[in-house]
Amino acid sequence: MKALCYHGKGDIRYEDFEDPKLASDTDVIVKMDQCAICGSDLHIYHGEGFSPDMGFCVGHEAVGTVEEVGRAVRRFDVGDPVMISAAVGCGSCPACLAGEIVKCHVQGFACYGLGSALQGCQAEGIRVPMGDFNLRKIPEGISTEQALMLTDNLPTAHVGCQRADVTPGSDVAVVGLGPIGLMAVEIVSVMGAGRVFALDLVPERRAIAENLGAIPVDPATATETISEATQGRMLGSVVECVGADASLQLSIQLAGVRGTVSSIGVNSNMQFPFPMALALAKGLTFRMALCSVQSHWEELIPLVRTGRLRPEQFVSHRMSLSDGAEAYRLFDAKEDGSMKMVMSD
Amino acid sequence: MKALCYHGKGDIRYEDFEDPKLASDTDVIVKMDQCAICGSDLHIYHGEGFSPDMGFCVGHEAVGTVEEVGRAVRRFDVGDPVMISAAVGCGSCPACLAGEIVKCHVQGFACYGLGSALQGCQAEGIRVPMGDFNLRKIPEGISTEQALMLTDNLPTAHVGCQRADVTPGSDVAVVGLGPIGLMAVEIVSVMGAGRVFALDLVPERRAIAENLGAIPVDPATATETISEATQGRMLGSVVECVGADASLQLSIQLAGVRGTVSSIGVNSNMQFPFPMALALAKGLTFRMALCSVQSHWEELIPLVRTGRLRPEQFVSHRMSLSDGAEAYRLFDAKEDGSMKMVMSD
Amino acid sequence: MKALCYHGKGDIRYEDFEDPKLASDTDVIVKMDQCAICGSDLHIYHGEGFSPDMGFCVGHEAVGTVEEVGRAVRRFDVGDPVMISAAVGCGSCPACLAGEIVKCHVQGFACYGLGSALQGCQAEGIRVPMGDFNLRKIPEGISTEQALMLTDNLPTAHVGCQRADVTPGSDVAVVGLGPIGLMAVEIVSVMGAGRVFALDLVPERRAIAENLGAIPVDPATATETISEATQGRMLGSVVECVGADASLQLSIQLAGVRGTVSSIGVNSNMQFPFPMALALAKGLTFRMALCSVQSHWEELIPLVRTGRLRPEQFVSHRMSLSDGAEAYRLFDAKEDGSMKMVMSD
Amino acid sequence: MKALCYHGKGDIRYEDFEDPKLASDTDVIVKMDQCAICGSDLHIYHGEGFSPDMGFCVGHEAVGTVEEVGRAVRRFDVGDPVMISAAVGCGSCPACLAGEIVKCHVQGFACYGLGSALQGCQAEGIRVPMGDFNLRKIPEGISTEQALMLTDNLPTAHVGCQRADVTPGSDVAVVGLGPIGLMAVEIVSVMGAGRVFALDLVPERRAIAENLGAIPVDPATATETISEATQGRMLGSVVECVGADASLQLSIQLAGVRGTVSSIGVNSNMQFPFPMALALAKGLTFRMALCSVQSHWEELIPLVRTGRLRPEQFVSHRMSLSDGAEAYRLFDAKEDGSMKMVMSD
Repeated sequence: MKALCYHGKGDIRYEDFEDPKLASDTDVIVKMDQCAICGSDLHIYHGEGFSPDMGFCVGHEAVGTVEEVGRAVRRFDVGDPVMISAAVGCGSCPACLAGEIVKCHVQGFACYGLGSALQGCQAEGIRVPMGDFNLRKIPEGISTEQALMLTDNLPTAHVGCQRADVTPGSDVAVVGLGPIGLMAVEIVSVMGAGRVFALDLVPERRAIAENLGAIPVDPATATETISEATQGRMLGSVVECVGADASLQLSIQLAGVRGTVSSIGVNSNMQFPFPMALALAKGLTFRMALCSVQSHWEELIPLVRTGRLRPEQFVSHRMSLSDGAEAYRLFDAKEDGSMKMVMSD
Repeated sequence: MKALCYHGKGDIRYEDFEDPKLASDTDVIVKMDQCAICGSDLHIYHGEGFSPDMGFCVGHEAVGTVEEVGRAVRRFDVGDPVMISAAVGCGSCPACLAGEIVKCHVQGFACYGLGSALQGCQAEGIRVPMGDFNLRKIPEGISTEQALMLTDNLPTAHVGCQRADVTPGSDVAVVGLGPIGLMAVEIVSVMGAGRVFALDLVPERRAIAENLGAIPVDPATATETISEATQGRMLGSVVECVGADASLQLSIQLAGVRGTVSSIGVNSNMQFPFPMALALAKGLTFRMALCSVQSHWEELIPLVRTGRLRPEQFVSHRMSLSDGAEAYRLFDAKEDGSMKMVMSD
Repeated sequence: MKALCYHGKGDIRYEDFEDPKLASDTDVIVKMDQCAICGSDLHIYHGEGFSPDMGFCVGHEAVGTVEEVGRAVRRFDVGDPVMISAAVGCGSCPACLAGEIVKCHVQGFACYGLGSALQGCQAEGIRVPMGDFNLRKIPEGISTEQALMLTDNLPTAHVGCQRADVTPGSDVAVVGLGPIGLMAVEIVSVMGAGRVFALDLVPERRAIAENLGAIPVDPATATETISEATQGRMLGSVVECVGADASLQLSIQLAGVRGTVSSIGVNSNMQFPFPMALALAKGLTFRMALCSVQSHWEELIPLVRTGRLRPEQFVSHRMSLSDGAEAYRLFDAKEDGSMKMVMSD
Repeated sequence: MKALCYHGKGDIRYEDFEDPKLASDTDVIVKMDQCAICGSDLHIYHGEGFSPDMGFCVGHEAVGTVEEVGRAVRRFDVGDPVMISAAVGCGSCPACLAGEIVKCHVQGFACYGLGSALQGCQAEGIRVPMGDFNLRKIPEGISTEQALMLTDNLPTAHVGCQRADVTPGSDVAVVGLGPIGLMAVEIVSVMGAGRVFALDLVPERRAIAENLGAIPVDPATATETISEATQGRMLGSVVECVGADASLQLSIQLAGVRGTVSSIGVNSNMQFPFPMALALAKGLTFRMALCSVQSHWEELIPLVRTGRLRPEQFVSHRMSLSDGAEAYRLFDAKEDGSMKMVMSD
């Protein structure tokens, strides 16, 4: 089959790759219908990946059609349209049974396309371990692109917002307005946030957030703007969706006393200069997200179905898998209004 | 009157000080019966205080007897035995009315003895602003020393434990076994913690924790010990009671996936090297405590009254206020088994 | 002054009444600007009131202007525009200080206009005990009619919705679409409810709810309709706003396994035939609301200010206090589209 | 094989019964080692069961040894010592995957031994549907009798206490001191309850509770006793473990303002005379429990292992399955200090 593979910094190739095969009775092979590039794929693209492997297949967001099922698979049949959870659980340890997939006792946190251990989803075919647990039939009333957003980005935005301690009526900032940040803007609104301040260096992205009802704020003047708007009390909740040191520092500035900064962005600094004295004076809560995708579906599916959340609106490009290298380039360069890059076979 | 005053690093003097006077109709003047030295007083003692002032009266933990009341004071009469909340609220803004005294809209977080703005409690007499809100009659069944522990240390330990997301049956570590750490050991037990790992460099302090039912752990081998005891899953909750960079780093190491580190210690580093990559891999929650003392009394008083919490057991020295300089020296040097230093007039 | 007084079943009279006077240093006298009739006033009107008294002044919803302040009042001056909390606390017991006004240790739950103990608000002047605690200046950006809704109805709807365990995306029913029920429709939407089923016997009221985005449902067919819409799983949350036995029974029918019925309606039956076997099979939570009005203002004011909640839209009649008897008659008969009856001096 | 079967009111017979057989690839056959009689079995014994069936095998509490596994069973092998969850889930619907077994989308709440649909556990052999989900290997450090208590009673007591809104330091009543009530006494203590008032008509049972640290209270004088002990404020949490109308009424009396009554007892009255007016005046929460047994194991196992909960202490009789009829008689008559009746093969 064909797949997108990583061959070093900036080098993603569309090339032949070994067909996925059932490796266990509980595996399911899925024919990819749509896949997408995630912001965290860019870490790999920048050569700052999660393994030293080369030549592996990348990507962890995909929906498709069941092509083959292991003998012990009970919930799926060939031909079923399915969405693939980016978080992979064993499905039978106490943690997985409790919905805490990221705490899986067997393997810990696992995901596709981070190395050779579990090949990626930006491929014509995908092997899904423990399919009964890590797949779900695309629910009625959910479109293919909506389902694709449910495989990773929307649940990730959701867990980040849940961990931000948003209360109805309270003011919230979302820092970083890529697809996940914009989804977070919608989610905190659904959670009842009062004013939503939306920060991004790119004016066009702030404009999108404004269309969603948020107050666009330039990060350069954010501290003053938000201090003034809140009579100096700053914010109860900040959802940080970038992961850069600067945006983390700014997010901590924006939090008020007893406030929470919930970070969804990926920051691989082992010595981030954390302002303890300031955090202490605020009695801050600082949280990193890690998403047990499957556990969020029950809450998110009805919100998508009824149109309260519209994650599919952030799809900016629909391309062919064979154009994957160009898709990565555009997304990385933030060119051409690139937001959510969707590729199909 | 006589009071303990700060005159520079390591220089606490027992000396004459201006008598406290009613400055407002809502003030109360309290004659000190017992006061205590708090770990955070040592920051001032080390010359790393919270203001550049000199010669001010120190201390923020005291109980006493009402000596004079302002005209608008309704809840207290001369002669009432009272405990003084270390957290001082205006008592009439929406934050104070909601019990969030540290978010007081009028003055923000305020405390005695941090500078000249509000003179300290290690004195024969104390002016308490907004007495109706910042004082409480010592409840029936609560001894004077128990009341003294309720003015700051026990509520601080309590908020730190509450913010550690302890669930019944879960394993918890308490890092740092000074008086607050030892109180935390008792509190997490009351909250239903399974095993409590108690860490301190000083073997004698670990022995006290062991007597309280905790498992004593040497910080030098803590990561291995706790990893082994938990099959590598580490802990859901860590209560950090030191504030040093090293103990914060260790605490983050000890937390497991979705774990919480709740820090009660004072760390004034503005660039603490926070291990973001590790925290992200754990989906960590990192919390700093700030204590709205009064709001904890409803929950703590019955626990002290029924003996489920015994904070008074950590009083190691009972001295005279006139020996204050020596009390500070002993406490700072951790000499003579010094734990909680109580002084009376 | 003039006031509306109760003289027996169906007999509300606009008549001379003794002027309110300061009875304590902490009292405030408020000149009424607007007052309103509450659904619970109809219990008194129907002769099923809360005391055997006669001739007392009725009503507990009003906004006005400060006319006189006791010597110990610190937060208000003559001329301040204020809203009056329908829940009256002592303001200095531990329960009031913790925001749990309905648990006031001094007097328990207290309210205006239920008998002679505390005269009502449908009067030209009102004595407010412990004014510093039971009044609030009308906040900037809040209109007089919005403030009036904040004195009782909106906080009551709010506590009822909070106690219904609404989670984002979940389906909710609101049973009874008077002013509080319609406010509840808006509030559960702000809380992120998926579908909101709105039930009332009166088609016009269902139409109003439909305009707010709810799904109108005839109570006669509600069980079937909602069972079908939820594949038999029924609802996680039901907000009951009538109080009649029939609507309580229906609400319990509509709840699913682990569902919650939160009742805001007033039901004075001491032997309501509760279907235990059914409730047990569902693992039901059944809650009665009691509203600590002041404690809800922090959360509600920004929601009203930003227009996410628009309680003022339910004002159907603006009349003079002198027409009070007719206002009661119209409201009780549900004539002329009567919803929220506002009277001014 | 031999089994205990129901043949009408008061008629439980030890007799031949068809051997259990694998009915599905996911079934597991378990050889019973120990089984127990539950209070809810007495409803069947009294002829007030949950189905009109006759001759079915009874009981839903058992531990044993795996004897045979279906082809799709992955987690168990022949010879494994296992505990059987009394709550039976399909294990693959969204509710089961989220740990809400009682909301199973496939079958709703299911349990052994309530009729012919799913034969009981008081038998030499037991067919366990979806074994991977409904069984657990007996964890290290847990004895057979402890495991037996974990199959139903302890999780049921636990969910009842969790749903009682117990906060550390608050006073709690447990009404009814059978095995579940006594387990509840221990659980609320672990949750940090201040004083625990333990009510039962039988003085011997009150004495057992007193030995656990509770305050024994005669139901006849409970209202006065508890009113006096709480200065009239009554209790925040009441755990009702009987189910009789009288004990439910008493429990509601004992709750204070904003209090919670959590009922674990089985009451099949469809017209329980619920005191609405009183409940409304208290702003009561009234909850019925329904236990998703498996979801409680993660929290309970460490509490049992460390000895904080000792449910095995309530085993009063160890008999043979062949003496089942006598075991039922003794338990029903509360003769011979009967508490938890354990039978082995």
